[in-house]
Amino acid sequence: MRAATLLNGSITVDELPIPVPGPMQVLVKTRRCAICASDTHFVTSADVMIENSKRFGGPYANIDLTKPIAMGHEFVAEIVEYGPQTQQQHPVGTRVTAIPGMVVDDQLSIVGYDSSYPGGFAEYMLLFEPLMLAVPDEVSDDLATLVEPLAVGLEHARAGHPTVDDTVLVIGAGAIGLGVIAGLKKAGVERIIAADLDAGRRDLAVQMGATFGVDPRETSPYGPQKAFDGKQVDLVYECVGRRGMLNQIIPGLGVGARIVMGGYSLEPEELLVPPAQDRRLTIYFASGEELQDMALALASIADGSIDVRSWVGRTIGLEEVAAAIPSINAPSSPIRTLVDPAR
Amino acid sequence: MRAATLLNGSITVDELPIPVPGPMQVLVKTRRCAICASDTHFVTSADVMIENSKRFGGPYANIDLTKPIAMGHEFVAEIVEYGPQTQQQHPVGTRVTAIPGMVVDDQLSIVGYDSSYPGGFAEYMLLFEPLMLAVPDEVSDDLATLVEPLAVGLEHARAGHPTVDDTVLVIGAGAIGLGVIAGLKKAGVERIIAADLDAGRRDLAVQMGATFGVDPRETSPYGPQKAFDGKQVDLVYECVGRRGMLNQIIPGLGVGARIVMGGYSLEPEELLVPPAQDRRLTIYFASGEELQDMALALASIADGSIDVRSWVGRTIGLEEVAAAIPSINAPSSPIRTLVDPAR
Repeated sequence: MRAATLLNGSITVDELPIPVPGPMQVLVKTRRCAICASDTHFVTSADVMIENSKRFGGPYANIDLTKPIAMGHEFVAEIVEYGPQTQQQHPVGTRVTAIPGMVVDDQLSIVGYDSSYPGGFAEYMLLFEPLMLAVPDEVSDDLATLVEPLAVGLEHARAGHPTVDDTVLVIGAGAIGLGVIAGLKKAGVERIIAADLDAGRRDLAVQMGATFGVDPRETSPYGPQKAFDGKQVDLVYECVGRRGMLNQIIPGLGVGARIVMGGYSLEPEELLVPPAQDRRLTIYFASGEELQDMALALASIADGSIDVRSWVGRTIGLEEVAAAIPSINAPSSPIRTLVDPAR
Repeated sequence: MRAATLLNGSITVDELPIPVPGPMQVLVKTRRCAICASDTHFVTSADVMIENSKRFGGPYANIDLTKPIAMGHEFVAEIVEYGPQTQQQHPVGTRVTAIPGMVVDDQLSIVGYDSSYPGGFAEYMLLFEPLMLAVPDEVSDDLATLVEPLAVGLEHARAGHPTVDDTVLVIGAGAIGLGVIAGLKKAGVERIIAADLDAGRRDLAVQMGATFGVDPRETSPYGPQKAFDGKQVDLVYECVGRRGMLNQIIPGLGVGARIVMGGYSLEPEELLVPPAQDRRLTIYFASGEELQDMALALASIADGSIDVRSWVGRTIGLEEVAAAIPSINAPSSPIRTLVDPAR
């Protein structure tokens, strides 16, 4: 099968064997796959991610960088063949998406970040049947690729235990921050500030349900907010993932505030403990979607209650993946660029 | 009045004016005051504490280091004179202790860390009446000095929202860690591991209610615990306050575990975010006692339900304070050395 694969830091289009489904696995044919910001991390810093997983535990410890890896974990695909010990709830040909996890012998791997489990930048993938969901007809292939990133945002949102009484700041209006905003709206939160450097992203945030956007270089989101009768931010979602964010956030907060760390950063944060103690802060670390988040994301896209059509950028073929990935994180980029391996 | 005062990094015995109580303030005569580990921080690093408070907000921003400061915030004293606008619930002569906070014009200062508010290493102090508690007759002066540090531990304990289902690790068996253990027992927690490098401290921890102690150089407190039918630690209290603790704790934990940061460290922690995200951790930052913690500490010492008699070391005079402070943090030191300004 054809695949855009990463080896020695560069991406080329290669031939890989079509994988054979083992127990609880399903062979699927990729229809569309979105490029995630994590893919750029992996291209530049897979060695650091592996080292950190070895040191601290984590899903990347067993990745073999000497073999080509087809990335891509935000996908829609159709069922081709079931492996042994499968429930086979959905007929062959059904469109599916999935949490990109693969569990073999109690060992978790990530589809798209493992040479044994090619992701959606390949024509075929293996999925772990218990983590797979059927995509209803009313959800297009393009929108189906957004189920996974939206689900991450929904999980992050609930990790902060938001209530209608909270005044919330979401820092970073990429896919995750936008998904958090959608999740906060679902939870009934009424006061949401979105901070992003890019005006276009701030507009998207308001479309998703933020009350207003701020450019943090010009307007501090902390302190009493006129728009909210003087209420102050008491719940912050960090969706940027850059060293130094915590030290920017903490001084702006009052006693009892909460922070959700959603951004993925390979550089350690410098955390000065006493200012966090003085404020009796709580920091929640949000990880990634669970099945309930995938189901909610899929249902919300299907019924239109979360509108992610504005996230979709252009669709490219496998040959264009290498060139596209470095620009994915530019603020002017669309939220998601899609890959069609059949193109 | 006589006082052991800190100026330019050294402590000498000086004469200070007896302070005059302002609105809501009470002049008290010190009977006994314990030396806290924070006092050693202040001697060596007051400038860093002030700078951090200026940068991040905090109670130390307005300390004037050009004036002599009488430290000491774990005290028992007797009421001498009430200032204006006081409730005067207790007659002159009543023994009292207090949260060492002083609020003037919405500005919080700490008694014992401010040249305007000498602490218990002076013959007289001003206390803020709303933060003052009367000490019942059955509590000796020595034990009354332990109300404040015990209350800090009780606050830290509840900051972690402990339940009877938790398996808890308390790292560091100084006054705070021991108070945490006492608070956990009060909350009904049955499985408590105390980690400390010093065998004597581990014995004290077991006396306070820990199930067993471990020397972390020899025995990891993480992973399945035989003594607890294979249960693993899911709630950790960091009561050491040293850079690097978080990176030691996080790899030992499973999904959903909680950490309470109780230790006071002036060096920033290096926090690698993805391992905390993979585990969906929660970090609570514990600050210090509130009135409910002081009241519980005082009542528990009075009724004997928390026995802190083993915390008491020798009592010294003001002239000995300078020599005593550097050795306070040695693991072989008693939990508390007391100062009697009248000696």
